Amino acid sequence: MPRFRLLIEYDGGGFVGWQHQRNGMSVQEAIETAIERLSGQKVRLHAAGRTDAGVHALGQVAHVDLERAWPGDTVRDALNHFLRPHPAAILEAGMVDDGFHARISARRRSYLFRLLERRAPPMVDRGRVWHVGRPLDLAAMQAGARQLVGRHDFTTFRAAECQALSPVKTLDRLAVARVGAEIRIEADARSFLHHQVRNMVGTLKLVGDGKWTPDDVGKALARRHRAAGGPTAPPEGLYLVSVGYLDDGTELSVNQE
Amino acid sequence: MPRFRLLIEYDGGGFVGWQHQRNGMSVQEAIETAIERLSGQKVRLHAAGRTDAGVHALGQVAHVDLERAWPGDTVRDALNHFLRPHPAAILEAGMVDDGFHARISARRRSYLFRLLERRAPPMVDRGRVWHVGRPLDLAAMQAGARQLVGRHDFTTFRAAECQALSPVKTLDRLAVARVGAEIRIEADARSFLHHQVRNMVGTLKLVGDGKWTPDDVGKALARRHRAAGGPTAPPEGLYLVSVGYLDDGTELSVNQE
Repeated sequence: MPRFRLLIEYDGGGFVGWQHQRNGMSVQEAIETAIERLSGQKVRLHAAGRTDAGVHALGQVAHVDLERAWPGDTVRDALNHFLRPHPAAILEAGMVDDGFHARISARRRSYLFRLLERRAPPMVDRGRVWHVGRPLDLAAMQAGARQLVGRHDFTTFRAAECQALSPVKTLDRLAVARVGAEIRIEADARSFLHHQVRNMVGTLKLVGDGKWTPDDVGKALARRHRAAGGPTAPPEGLYLVSVGYLDDGTELSVNQE
Repeated sequence: MPRFRLLIEYDGGGFVGWQHQRNGMSVQEAIETAIERLSGQKVRLHAAGRTDAGVHALGQVAHVDLERAWPGDTVRDALNHFLRPHPAAILEAGMVDDGFHARISARRRSYLFRLLERRAPPMVDRGRVWHVGRPLDLAAMQAGARQLVGRHDFTTFRAAECQALSPVKTLDRLAVARVGAEIRIEADARSFLHHQVRNMVGTLKLVGDGKWTPDDVGKALARRHRAAGGPTAPPEGLYLVSVGYLDDGTELSVNQE
């Protein structure tokens, strides 16, 4: 059967997360239902990464096998029609090689986390940023972030429910920058542990608040125990920006400002 | 009585517009009610510009006279508390000279209009951009915009309801740029006619679509008749970004990415 790759955007606030849940609409269920309305097939959609409730995606990738070799643009437009009113959209759809697997073939995941420093709560970006309400120490956060880049046992930043086989991951990039009244944290790795980005962000916020020194981040990492890390940052500031693949020589991504 | 200046952000989708309406909650009513809950006073709030239903503000400015000389931060935080759950927030509040008038003292208004070119509808930015669904001709739009900069009779781009004394305005800047899958149009002037920005944007989109040439924009302007202009762009792509004042040597604005 023809395999299709989908590039997906969603507002995480409108879903219980990527994965099927009994207690509400998941992104997976919304798109699988739209595919059934298009094709008549009951399908299983496989994503590059399962995002939690409230976490947004600008460039999630998933694959699905359909019986017909529809034109990609037809699949995109029809799914966007059937997805209404759910806050998810198919940005691109196209046939790919049978060997492509959205999760297994992925070589890079890129996340963005936005923290709003100003005192007043966000209105235009409500549900899109973590409102921390006061300025953070950017340089200290940058120094703390440097302690996490590289190949490490990230148990300190791993959720108890994490199903990864190993806690050892290579964090390729963890950049902290100020943009207007926001701190933006960008994280790139081949893969992440469950809650790893949110737990790293929650810890770096302690550094930004002056409660931790940058060196405390490295010490917490070395402890290899979740209790040694900072709290989990809320989901609404987190975006799955893009997923990179080598298999077809291209990298699926969306432009970021 | 002490006069206060407020810097205000709001999500225009949550209101019937700035000004009091019988058919729903206006930004003005929401903030006046919050001020009454803080101070016990029934007040009248004066804004730099009356935005329409659906139009957002990142830096609207208003003034109000209060009986007590509250600290500005107290006013800001208390109003933000009482404003819940309306999608409006006070970014800054502070006492100003009696001679300050949010509308009359304003020397510059800056607006942003965002158009999303991609086929798929916006999800993370739903209600925040005009979804046009296909690429526009950027260079042609830039050439069309140049026809509008300067001092002109803008009757072609003026709403029938406009209450301005004269249709002659000086448009200081009309910049068109591509950012990712968006076209962003920035407009600066001392003041604008009612619907002027949305009517200019609706006209420039005709140029971007190839239905009009850039020169057609100048010809429409010269006709000095609303029927000669393009359609009114929808409100959800429009943002009042900032208002500038000379009176106190400062310019109230918020950082834009």
